[in-house]
Amino acid sequence: MWPATAAARGLRGILGTQHGLIQAPMAGAGGVALAVAVCEAGGLGSLPCAMLDPPTADAQMREMRALTARPFNVNFFCHTAPDTRAAASAEQQQAWRHVLQPIYQREGVAVPPLTGAPGAGSRTPFDDDMCRVVERHRPAVVSFHFGLPDSALFERVKATGACVMSSATTVAEAVWLAQRGCDVVIAQGVEAGGHRGMFLSSDITTQVGTMALVPQVVDAVDVPVIAAGGIGDARGVAAAFALGASAVQLGTAYLHVAEATITSPHKQALKAATADSTALTNLFSGRPARGVVNRLMREVGPMNTDAPPFPTAGTALVPLKAAGEARGVGDYTSLWAGQGVGLRLPWQHDTAAALTSALVGDVMKTMYM
Amino acid sequence: MWPATAAARGLRGILGTQHGLIQAPMAGAGGVALAVAVCEAGGLGSLPCAMLDPPTADAQMREMRALTARPFNVNFFCHTAPDTRAAASAEQQQAWRHVLQPIYQREGVAVPPLTGAPGAGSRTPFDDDMCRVVERHRPAVVSFHFGLPDSALFERVKATGACVMSSATTVAEAVWLAQRGCDVVIAQGVEAGGHRGMFLSSDITTQVGTMALVPQVVDAVDVPVIAAGGIGDARGVAAAFALGASAVQLGTAYLHVAEATITSPHKQALKAATADSTALTNLFSGRPARGVVNRLMREVGPMNTDAPPFPTAGTALVPLKAAGEARGVGDYTSLWAGQGVGLRLPWQHDTAAALTSALVGDVMKTMYM
Repeated sequence: MWPATAAARGLRGILGTQHGLIQAPMAGAGGVALAVAVCEAGGLGSLPCAMLDPPTADAQMREMRALTARPFNVNFFCHTAPDTRAAASAEQQQAWRHVLQPIYQREGVAVPPLTGAPGAGSRTPFDDDMCRVVERHRPAVVSFHFGLPDSALFERVKATGACVMSSATTVAEAVWLAQRGCDVVIAQGVEAGGHRGMFLSSDITTQVGTMALVPQVVDAVDVPVIAAGGIGDARGVAAAFALGASAVQLGTAYLHVAEATITSPHKQALKAATADSTALTNLFSGRPARGVVNRLMREVGPMNTDAPPFPTAGTALVPLKAAGEARGVGDYTSLWAGQGVGLRLPWQHDTAAALTSALVGDVMKTMYM
Repeated sequence: MWPATAAARGLRGILGTQHGLIQAPMAGAGGVALAVAVCEAGGLGSLPCAMLDPPTADAQMREMRALTARPFNVNFFCHTAPDTRAAASAEQQQAWRHVLQPIYQREGVAVPPLTGAPGAGSRTPFDDDMCRVVERHRPAVVSFHFGLPDSALFERVKATGACVMSSATTVAEAVWLAQRGCDVVIAQGVEAGGHRGMFLSSDITTQVGTMALVPQVVDAVDVPVIAAGGIGDARGVAAAFALGASAVQLGTAYLHVAEATITSPHKQALKAATADSTALTNLFSGRPARGVVNRLMREVGPMNTDAPPFPTAGTALVPLKAAGEARGVGDYTSLWAGQGVGLRLPWQHDTAAALTSALVGDVMKTMYM
């Protein structure tokens, strides 16, 4: 059980886990099987609900309860959904399709219609319906990305007794979360894969690396801090604890195990990637997220100002993604990964249970022997 | 004396220092006094020579020898200088002045002439003349930024018996340096202040955070690795050692001490800065470097494709910098700082000796008590 500091013991008491290890929720890349395996191995498994409708989230939480008696985390996005029926929205979608026009042509696919709906891979913000699901299942931990839901929803979640966590990418965001009653802050360094949790700023040029972010967040807030970003083996875990974190959150490390539900091009890209293979990109959803650089990111730039607002940018990519994946390539697929992707440990274990056990064992050896 | 691993002991043997602590060379921000103070306090002081001509470098190395019997590091840039007399260069300078035109107008300063010379604040690459200075003084450690000099110069430096170090910002750069005979690799995470040492790529979107970079570099090369970027107190030092580093390099932490030679607006900017106050910018020299975001960076963007190649971009800013500083503001001044700038420890000590001693003491307490 690690780390052995009072703050970390306190956090494990709150989370109810054996170890200060959280499997990052990764919408689309992992579900019940991954979360259960991590819970059973002594970490905190996370069920990503950002891309689920309430009935599906309800079914998956019921499944979690049936498969593990351990506490688990459920994760939601809490962005403000754009009005996709507005004229401005149609203009943005047209401009975006214009940028992609030469690629549609090259791939021989039809330009996807402007449906007014957010489209495939869409994410819905946490709302009353979803809050009822949480109230029904009362998971031990509820985490949010992109800030917190409005105070009425937030208070309802707190009233279930859940430990509430959210991601901060700056000191200011950490302070904002702690002041609003967030129980735990996840300091998400710029190395992290997938969507940046940023919500007070949209400027990626000032996003902060884990090494600098964690101690400055620890100094700024009174709640326990979880370190995320670039951690993939016992060295990173020990480093995060040295920086003052009370627990660590790992995502990319769990992407290649059997329980992960990623595409085959995504798996191949992860296997070939090194620390500098990834970049922040807004092409796939409209918000900055870190993934392996692919053809689309090279062709239109990883950050393109014409990409429509989150979560609507991906609709225009649907036929391109399908065309690429049909021939086995991830040229137009989001290949989420953090900068720890080249670390070897995760590749030596095929299941989430084996990886978690190996990591836990290595940390014990590193820190206490 | 730390860290206590065999690799780190080995590196201290090579460097000849008591502790695995290197004061980063910061051209323009520190000189003999800063380096001597760090050497005397048991770290490795670094004399930045990138902005010195050979006679001045010669005089400063002589001064170092007179003031300390301890080993020290001398640092050089080894970029390829652009041909400033070429027509293309004049065009670039014109385009850059065009971008700055509204700012010249607002500040009421004359557009600086196209002199064909690299201008104020210019950096000269390591060459035969400078190599003679190194051969004369035989410093214990010689470090390079932007790769390594050509093999003839490199071999001459090696022949002096110096330990040769250089910065890597990716795993590929670390491997490249080690393969060419570099004795020590400095893994420079994206958090680091000042110029990125990048030399195999100029793409800042794939630059790697310290947490992810250090262990992947350690795994890829057989030489000792120094961690740099985002480290400002004992927590960062301990974290770097947990990641596998054999020593740490700190720059920003030494910027505010009495021996630092930075402008008053720079000092004020550092004092007000938090972890997310900095960005990478090519405006001041032509190469990406991290500094506190100021008015110029906001107005023309921190990375501007019209900025001429390193080291010539700064010439056009000379009158703006002077105008700003004359009224006490750093609107057009490079305010180099890393993302660890908000850490408190460095601000509690006024001299390099006091800061170094405090840091050494804290590390001992953190790691061995």
